[in-house]
Amino acid sequence: MGKTPVIAVAVQKIMVSGTTTTSDLLAVEEPLEIRLGYGPAHAREQKSISVTMRTPGNDFELALGFLFTEGIIENASDITQIRYCTELNTKENSENIVRVELHEHVQVDMAKLSRNFYTTSSCGVCGKASIESVKTQCRIFSGNTPFKIPASLLHSLPGMLRGQQTLFEHTGGIHACALFDTNGNLLLMREDVGRHNALDKLIGAAIGKELVPLNRHIILLSGRASFELLQKAAMAGVRVVCAIGAPSSLAVQTANEFDITLIGFLRNDRFNIYSRSETITIGS
Amino acid sequence: MGKTPVIAVAVQKIMVSGTTTTSDLLAVEEPLEIRLGYGPAHAREQKSISVTMRTPGNDFELALGFLFTEGIIENASDITQIRYCTELNTKENSENIVRVELHEHVQVDMAKLSRNFYTTSSCGVCGKASIESVKTQCRIFSGNTPFKIPASLLHSLPGMLRGQQTLFEHTGGIHACALFDTNGNLLLMREDVGRHNALDKLIGAAIGKELVPLNRHIILLSGRASFELLQKAAMAGVRVVCAIGAPSSLAVQTANEFDITLIGFLRNDRFNIYSRSETITIGS
Repeated sequence: MGKTPVIAVAVQKIMVSGTTTTSDLLAVEEPLEIRLGYGPAHAREQKSISVTMRTPGNDFELALGFLFTEGIIENASDITQIRYCTELNTKENSENIVRVELHEHVQVDMAKLSRNFYTTSSCGVCGKASIESVKTQCRIFSGNTPFKIPASLLHSLPGMLRGQQTLFEHTGGIHACALFDTNGNLLLMREDVGRHNALDKLIGAAIGKELVPLNRHIILLSGRASFELLQKAAMAGVRVVCAIGAPSSLAVQTANEFDITLIGFLRNDRFNIYSRSETITIGS
Repeated sequence: MGKTPVIAVAVQKIMVSGTTTTSDLLAVEEPLEIRLGYGPAHAREQKSISVTMRTPGNDFELALGFLFTEGIIENASDITQIRYCTELNTKENSENIVRVELHEHVQVDMAKLSRNFYTTSSCGVCGKASIESVKTQCRIFSGNTPFKIPASLLHSLPGMLRGQQTLFEHTGGIHACALFDTNGNLLLMREDVGRHNALDKLIGAAIGKELVPLNRHIILLSGRASFELLQKAAMAGVRVVCAIGAPSSLAVQTANEFDITLIGFLRNDRFNIYSRSETITIGS
């Protein structure tokens, strides 16, 4: 029972020193469909709202995190049940459809879901419109950040993430993100072939532990920081986002709009601060 | 005029040796909407079919490659015009909407477009169904590969890609893919913040040069190999896909189904062969 996040395949390894046929571990990639049940008890409706290519594992957290970061639910109590939709499953797609039942009080704007999230009718298609559309969804206002993070604490985070990245260690091919408190304690870590899925799983897990809004926490991303990841962080009220890789232009703009401290290239005892640098204490 | 793929921002660089405030170059990330015009001359219709977060540049190639790899068009002659939809643009979203006019003979299955590509009604949601849905789209059958590639040629490819990756060199935050012939000559290279966009741009450019089907070519990906990238390669008839990073499970399954030679971890004078190893000549 249960899908595994890693599988073994036969592979030929070609090196200067010679060739061997051996077994290699791959990160599993499979589709996950999220179906919503919603509406009043006497007239329940259902709709498939998303199919994402993900690594199996923590699927209910992924669904919970996705619904939250897309602005479809406000908190865990909006959901009455999450389960695998086994009656529709065959052997091959067992556990690839998650059914989420919303509380009947929850209003779902299906027209909004079917529209693209990044465009607004008033402003057209641009980076500014993308940020505005997150603003209209975001229910958390965190205001000023009341804490300081020493630079030395940030330097210590990548090592802690690597120590926990078991799937990456085995496969070399999976994204991770981690949640730390402001003392640098690692609270949660999630991995996935899709970077947006890893963050949705992390935020879903944090909602389950009643940690959201994450306004006294640090999120560390194993790769680059894109708009989509900053959007999800903003929705969860995160104040500090660190990436091992580079940020994009729109990630920096989004961080500025939501008063998020954005750190990039956090590796080899250095980093860059792209926004709200007053949160970081240098030389300590 | 024209959006730039890179912008400069002020950044604080924190190193052990000290802190400097300087300028850092970021890869630009902005939405691109693709709108289709289709149907007979007396009853043209239009529909927005995609919004993707991309790096500006080669937008028409991106639209062309996307329409081809999604199975909406069969070749360049299905399109009568590609242009920016400037009448809808404001200053801020200039060049963020591309309008593609299809030849009136082209049949567009809008129901198919609005369904998710990775699910089929017969088989549900699983890796096998995802591959089957690509098979029903794919119009190129390449059959057996009539050429051999020496291992030494593969070792030389990453260096050539790096030599061309100007945006990555400046920003450290962008994906690339390159097209080589079977003698290892670099024919085309494209970069984007989204790995799927980089490949769509490359395939769009190859269509423009009448190189598709790419059945005597090698594609090199700067990062990992996911299902989505193998799907696009299969649609373009590619026989050999190499990735600097790891493949996912579904990427390997897709390569096997489409008789594609899939190489992973092509770096530091080594690589792994995941499928159709007979294409690669070892020890030469």
